[in-house]
This record gives sequence, C-alpha cells and structure tokens, in this order.
Amino acid sequence: MKARVTIMLKDGVLDPQGEAIRHALGGLGFQGVEGVRQGKVIELDLVSADAEAAKAEVARMCEGLLANTVIEKYAVEIV
Amino acid sequence: MKARVTIMLKDGVLDPQGEAIRHALGGLGFQGVEGVRQGKVIELDLVSADAEAAKAEVARMCEGLLANTVIEKYAVEIV
Repeated sequence: MKARVTIMLKDGVLDPQGEAIRHALGGLGFQGVEGVRQGKVIELDLVSADAEAAKAEVARMCEGLLANTVIEKYAVEIV
Repeated sequence: MKARVTIMLKDGVLDPQGEAIRHALGGLGFQGVEGVRQGKVIELDLVSADAEAAKAEVARMCEGLLANTVIEKYAVEIV
C-alpha cells in the first residue's frame, strides 16, 4: 500500500523558498503568479494492508519525524 | 485559481533523502516501511481564470524552472 504525505508550511509562516520561486518566475516572463508556497511530498511504500491503520501509523510518523508541527502542517492520503 | 505541482525523482533515480527517511523511521521503531521517495510540492496562486490555459502555463514553468526534467518528473493539478 502506498501513502503520500504532503507537508507545507502553515499559513502565516514566511516561505522564503516560495518567494524566491515567485521572483524567478517573474524574471522568466511568467506573469500572473500571485503567490508561491513550497512544501515536501513523501511517498511511503507500506507493508500494511489496512488503509485506516496505515493512515494512523503514517500520521504518527509525521508527528514523530517527518513534519515540524510547530511551523508545518501535513496531510496523509492513501493512494 | 490554485495549481499544485508535484515533483518527484524519476523511477530508477537514486533518492538518498528518501533512503535516509526510511532508515530514520526504522530507528524510531516504525516497521513495515519498504520504501520512501521524497519530492517537492509547489502551490501557485494564479490570476488566470481558465483552468486549461493555467495548466499549460504551469507545465511551461515546470519545463523552464521548477523541475529538472532529466531526473525529475512532474504532475500539475488545478485545485
């Protein structure tokens, strides 16, 4: 079973990397980009066959290692 | 309109960052993780109101700046 975790900075937390991308896009002539936020995506191959249990396990992984929950939010989906 | 770009290393390209996460998860006692791949997600706020045009524009951004298409693959979704 595959799980996908998406980790983004929380709203209101400054994202200099996203800002740099926005600036670079403008420099390349891409108009109409009002904001950019960059985050991480982590795909996990899991042995578990139980989707609900897997989702809870991955949420524990996020809390314990993958995300810094002070400044980051995460979403887990089973794919 | 919001677009989300997911950029992952192509299959077969070594992902040391993902491997490090897998190892760290094992060290924390999370069993049953067979593989980990890490990628990037970029969320763009666009002025455009035309979903198809926006998607094509974002694909051009990926080709030109956001992704290294030699080793990375990308997916664009309008959200």
